[in-house]
Amino acid sequence: MITLASDFGTPYPAVMKGVLRQRTDARLVDVAHDFPRQDVRTAAFWLREVLPYFPPATHLVVIDPGVGTDRDAIVVRAGDHTLVGPDNGVLLPAARRLAGDAGRLEAYLIDEDGLDPVEPTTDQSEPNSRSQHPPQGRSRTFHGRDVFAPAAAAVHDITDLESFVWLEPTTADVDLELPTATLDAERAVGEVLAVDGFGNVITNVPGSALESRERVRANGEPIPVGETFAAVPVGDRLATVGSHGYVELDVNQGRGDEAFDLEPGDRVVLEPVPGDDG
Amino acid sequence: MITLASDFGTPYPAVMKGVLRQRTDARLVDVAHDFPRQDVRTAAFWLREVLPYFPPATHLVVIDPGVGTDRDAIVVRAGDHTLVGPDNGVLLPAARRLAGDAGRLEAYLIDEDGLDPVEPTTDQSEPNSRSQHPPQGRSRTFHGRDVFAPAAAAVHDITDLESFVWLEPTTADVDLELPTATLDAERAVGEVLAVDGFGNVITNVPGSALESRERVRANGEPIPVGETFAAVPVGDRLATVGSHGYVELDVNQGRGDEAFDLEPGDRVVLEPVPGDDG
Amino acid sequence: MITLASDFGTPYPAVMKGVLRQRTDARLVDVAHDFPRQDVRTAAFWLREVLPYFPPATHLVVIDPGVGTDRDAIVVRAGDHTLVGPDNGVLLPAARRLAGDAGRLEAYLIDEDGLDPVEPTTDQSEPNSRSQHPPQGRSRTFHGRDVFAPAAAAVHDITDLESFVWLEPTTADVDLELPTATLDAERAVGEVLAVDGFGNVITNVPGSALESRERVRANGEPIPVGETFAAVPVGDRLATVGSHGYVELDVNQGRGDEAFDLEPGDRVVLEPVPGDDG
Repeated sequence: MITLASDFGTPYPAVMKGVLRQRTDARLVDVAHDFPRQDVRTAAFWLREVLPYFPPATHLVVIDPGVGTDRDAIVVRAGDHTLVGPDNGVLLPAARRLAGDAGRLEAYLIDEDGLDPVEPTTDQSEPNSRSQHPPQGRSRTFHGRDVFAPAAAAVHDITDLESFVWLEPTTADVDLELPTATLDAERAVGEVLAVDGFGNVITNVPGSALESRERVRANGEPIPVGETFAAVPVGDRLATVGSHGYVELDVNQGRGDEAFDLEPGDRVVLEPVPGDDG
Repeated sequence: MITLASDFGTPYPAVMKGVLRQRTDARLVDVAHDFPRQDVRTAAFWLREVLPYFPPATHLVVIDPGVGTDRDAIVVRAGDHTLVGPDNGVLLPAARRLAGDAGRLEAYLIDEDGLDPVEPTTDQSEPNSRSQHPPQGRSRTFHGRDVFAPAAAAVHDITDLESFVWLEPTTADVDLELPTATLDAERAVGEVLAVDGFGNVITNVPGSALESRERVRANGEPIPVGETFAAVPVGDRLATVGSHGYVELDVNQGRGDEAFDLEPGDRVVLEPVPGDDG
Repeated sequence: MITLASDFGTPYPAVMKGVLRQRTDARLVDVAHDFPRQDVRTAAFWLREVLPYFPPATHLVVIDPGVGTDRDAIVVRAGDHTLVGPDNGVLLPAARRLAGDAGRLEAYLIDEDGLDPVEPTTDQSEPNSRSQHPPQGRSRTFHGRDVFAPAAAAVHDITDLESFVWLEPTTADVDLELPTATLDAERAVGEVLAVDGFGNVITNVPGSALESRERVRANGEPIPVGETFAAVPVGDRLATVGSHGYVELDVNQGRGDEAFDLEPGDRVVLEPVPGDDG
């Protein structure tokens, strides 16, 4: 199985699928292709949250603002999973999560010249094709097609990555750590990691910060704590422990990001409401 | 085969697919994941129109504004099809259509504690995972991942639903009936069921209301009746019998919802144009 | 393998997939369903660029502003690929590319009455179904469901198209040629073929026009030529050779269409910067 994630929109993911289909019968599953463009951190967060629910698979990830520069292309073995993508940090939070403490976490540098070049399945002798459609060899702007898809197809059910002459053990150059929150008995200080499509504001504060509380002050304003969205009336704000295990600032059937005026990267401080216990 | 429908956008459907892939090799087909959020009625309409074109399958449906409340999670057997989702009415119009008159229509309550719990495929001994990613057991906000996907994976090619100890015959609590139009020889009174992506206004008035008419008054305004969009010039309005069998108010290569100023739930009255026969 | 492309958004593509799944076990791969509505030319461009990266396949294409009119439905054999769609030109640029010079390029007219009619998999004896859901036979507005999907399912792994009694050799009525640029040593005059989701402005000027240039005047304004987006600072404009082999007018991590104020169909003139060599 190969999963695909990118910031491509359409139809570029279909080009990657065509290349994969030229080379493998693996199942293909889309993670998302509408990640915010060139936003490595947001994609890294979502991949860390989503990929662990897949069985062992190869994960093809192309959020690649540095395409065509000297940033490396890498393959990361993380436990029973394999990730393929640019060496810009986007793979690492997911890889660490997938590997766990006891698991293997190894990076390999892709020698792009060692990959079978991607060719359209057309008769290249057509004169019009030759003059109007000259992509010979690798492009400098679409490594999803020319580097990462071929690499993912090659490694997707091979566990012995050392067997590939075009892979060389390396250390990932860019280590992206998603920020963690600080907690003490009095308060939690964290930040917004992501806003999902519902407008739920996902922070990096562990859900334990809400334990045995009925209310909490979020950036100074007291709001109810609920176990479900429906713990408050439709349209009302609440703090809850989201499905990721983090504190979320939400609105029942509405958009938390608008109600709290928060976006990714914004600071979030959670404190007891004065007078409340616990 | 398992179809998936939700109001999730991305990337949450991929989490459901990961869970499904951990448990089954079934084919997965997306119906849509951009249904209007928390809009049970609109999703119910589309599912009723779309699912009957599939061969017998399991349909995983998560439009679930009451997630985490005491609303039930159910499995519905409808003829040769099986539907899995919340007991909020979203499944029933499709289920009735799929069952037909002679077919079986049975509901089963899901005992959530009877399902194998969903686990990420990571090494849970990793300390950082433990502290930062504590989702143990079922979430209260993502039953698509924790309840409905596991249930769909379990039942997807089993016809004997009674064999599951975690399923118990029940009666669906919430019966959602999509509104029907009233017709007589003079006029039809109905409402807008949905607007599709082209802007076509789909009413609940059966197409027979346009039979042998060349024009019709729609909410008072005479418009031509056409068998195809192209029966009128580009940009002009028309009434036609859409692919669902209902009267649609459309614009040739334009948006009917804007031209007629109509949205789902709005009243639609169709009458003869004074002076016309038929 | 059957690929699907349309301007349908959702959920209509799922209806086509249901029909396909009733008739075939072929792999299904989405190319895109968000092509600009009724825009035959833009879809023709993208199909020409995307489909050649697939292995031999059947390509189901429904961009069909003339649905229900007397425009023909056709099957085109192009080398080892097969295309199915309306005879409005949308298939031809891709078909010519796929066929190449030496390859076979043949068109067949679909006799719609020769196709097995599409039926919902419901019990049609249900009275409510009968009155409210009367689509009997072919619709005039959804040939993706009623004509093209059934035709694609039928031909998808058959190489001998002459064997189908409902196919008759024909000549495509509408020949759509995407415009080509004119080049001489001094300047290139072309136009914008498409803008991709990143905002990259894809012209029809072959990439060779930028060879050995460090700068170029695009519609009068001098801009740097780069091999990669990152050749210029974030937010700056550049001309580059895109992955399609054409000159693109882009912004590093920004939107070229906005920075250059260009959209599909707009004229693009590339000239040397006065004083520059080459």
